Amino acid sequence: MKNLTIGLFGFGNVGRGLYDVLERINSQSVTIKTICVRNLAKNRGVEAHFTDNPDDIFEDKDINLIVELIDDADAAYDIVKRALKKRIPVVSGNKKMLAYHIIELIDLQEQYNTPLLYDASACGSIPVIRNLEEYYDNDLLCSVKGILNGSSNFILSKIFNEHMSYGDALRLAQELGFAESNPTLDIDGWDSLFKLIIVTMHAFGVYVTPEEIFTYGISTMNDADIRFTKEKDRRIKLVAHVEKFDDRLIMCVIPQLISRNKYIYGVEDEFNGVVIKGLFYGKQFMFGRGAGGHPTGSAVLSDITACAYNYRYEYKKRNNSVLPAYTKEHTFRVYFRYKTAEQRNLLNFSKVREQYSSDDYNYIVGDVTIANLKAHQEELRHPDCFVAAYPFD
Amino acid sequence: MKNLTIGLFGFGNVGRGLYDVLERINSQSVTIKTICVRNLAKNRGVEAHFTDNPDDIFEDKDINLIVELIDDADAAYDIVKRALKKRIPVVSGNKKMLAYHIIELIDLQEQYNTPLLYDASACGSIPVIRNLEEYYDNDLLCSVKGILNGSSNFILSKIFNEHMSYGDALRLAQELGFAESNPTLDIDGWDSLFKLIIVTMHAFGVYVTPEEIFTYGISTMNDADIRFTKEKDRRIKLVAHVEKFDDRLIMCVIPQLISRNKYIYGVEDEFNGVVIKGLFYGKQFMFGRGAGGHPTGSAVLSDITACAYNYRYEYKKRNNSVLPAYTKEHTFRVYFRYKTAEQRNLLNFSKVREQYSSDDYNYIVGDVTIANLKAHQEELRHPDCFVAAYPFD
Repeated sequence: MKNLTIGLFGFGNVGRGLYDVLERINSQSVTIKTICVRNLAKNRGVEAHFTDNPDDIFEDKDINLIVELIDDADAAYDIVKRALKKRIPVVSGNKKMLAYHIIELIDLQEQYNTPLLYDASACGSIPVIRNLEEYYDNDLLCSVKGILNGSSNFILSKIFNEHMSYGDALRLAQELGFAESNPTLDIDGWDSLFKLIIVTMHAFGVYVTPEEIFTYGISTMNDADIRFTKEKDRRIKLVAHVEKFDDRLIMCVIPQLISRNKYIYGVEDEFNGVVIKGLFYGKQFMFGRGAGGHPTGSAVLSDITACAYNYRYEYKKRNNSVLPAYTKEHTFRVYFRYKTAEQRNLLNFSKVREQYSSDDYNYIVGDVTIANLKAHQEELRHPDCFVAAYPFD
Repeated sequence: MKNLTIGLFGFGNVGRGLYDVLERINSQSVTIKTICVRNLAKNRGVEAHFTDNPDDIFEDKDINLIVELIDDADAAYDIVKRALKKRIPVVSGNKKMLAYHIIELIDLQEQYNTPLLYDASACGSIPVIRNLEEYYDNDLLCSVKGILNGSSNFILSKIFNEHMSYGDALRLAQELGFAESNPTLDIDGWDSLFKLIIVTMHAFGVYVTPEEIFTYGISTMNDADIRFTKEKDRRIKLVAHVEKFDDRLIMCVIPQLISRNKYIYGVEDEFNGVVIKGLFYGKQFMFGRGAGGHPTGSAVLSDITACAYNYRYEYKKRNNSVLPAYTKEHTFRVYFRYKTAEQRNLLNFSKVREQYSSDDYNYIVGDVTIANLKAHQEELRHPDCFVAAYPFD
């Protein structure tokens, strides 16, 4: 095991979490030497060497690991690229940056023979990426499906179980440090999407750009939707989903009406839960804290320790001779609330199974393709509309 | 990735499961060349090269991986030792053999620079060992607790949820291929114990012999115990438990009365569930099929693929400068059913919290040490007695 001298970028919720975790375990072999922050004037309340000049990290010959835990995806991208090019191993928690640049970053890792680890970027403390990479690395894997965003799940739990209003629940999530600084990332499904893209790379060796994937969140969900869901004895969960059907791969982020007999039905508050399904072994379920500085900080520590042992992702699935082709030609049963005829006509239902109309709102339960949903992703974000998958089971 | 030509020992439930899994994925790089079985006359119903002579595997220069999936721990030990000494990597599923010989087998791996993998030996399809080894490899880990035996859990589920008799439930478990050929291994906690010993080695770097650990199962559980448990709105689960308290480590296998708010309350049938607890990240829960030929066969496949990538366990925790010391000086609240005064006096309750007596049986709820339980492990297996941990919560 190597001794690691860390240059840390960012001292927000997760950076501070990592700092606390390292203090607590009092490691002799892992030390943070320098912390680079944007605002040097801010009192951080800890005894550490702060700087606002990245060169103080990049030009320090002692530093043999860079940990990047900042919010800004563009700045994170620059840091990670610069680190790899200088052959300094790097740990990152920035899922947006990874979702956009993972192909280039895989190439850079290879070109400069330097590892980039980011298990902490998906599902906080649950080791999803490492398991997909190392354990589910054979062809038995069928699907990965789960609640990947702790903040929106926290809000849904408070709304469903404690009848809290949307605004109160969001504020509470922010106070507790679960929400991203820009809450639409959580609420509208983007954070789940970024994680899904990373997960899919390790699960199936396939990269799909964020723009290509239907992504829809809970920001337009209202009381009518909650009522409908409760009547069916289900709960709304924001689900990221990738599934292989022979040579085709579907991906999406969509709220789902989840019935009681599903593992993720009971995933509450800031927790994440991932169901991994494979031939022969069936379903496996992993569950843990998906947000918060300390759980995510401890996940970053696992990445750091892996670096000390020279671990690197091998992206094994990318080397499969045949990779499944991404498609949006897949049909879901959905619940769709709308107001106007124009909104109704956004979706081409191949089958209508249930209809309701009133002066206030209307809804349809019926079958649509992901392609159809994707084509109207932005129009469906209108406050009059809400769409959720409504699986048979 | 290396091409692997496998010599397989054993073609029981798991061996056959592995065979089916490999057939299904139709791997070009992994093939079973020879299968060594005890009874060559038995019709196996598959087209493969069978032998009853181990030399046909050990002396075959083509074979570069040995997979050992036999029942007999002594024979398994000989096979694994011989393989390591011949520098042939080996995958084993024999938890009893591992629980007794793991220290020697760690040394042999090092001495002959040859890996032995056995993730499939604990918790079937759940990658517990790999995760403890790779992801929970820092000092944050506090405890590992769970249902590690699918067969006894299947029986408990049938008894508790479907009011099946003990005998019928056991027969059904055997028919479905969940039970070991010797059911006392499952029912009396030994199988869970063996897995616990392996898990503890990877979780905390500590080895304790099977004889040292309190191990108690469900074979004497009766209707009175079930009634008591249901009255408290709990379920009985057979739990293996290792927990670190600063510099001390406790281990035991004991039935527990589990309340509804615990993750393992909902682990039913042949499933296994493991709760990993750590500082900062809190509890994580992993859940999946813990028994059955196909799930376990797919876990063996993961070990085989890991071999193809030259993966080996590093037993990192063993290198910690200070290891926690195993102790039985730890107090539990237990439920204890008994009949005679002599039986009553087996246990020294430091506190009695509840008492009941009748002509048929008596029980006490109170606090005892693990050392006290361990001292009377065999007497407590009397049909008149049943003891179960009864945690506060």
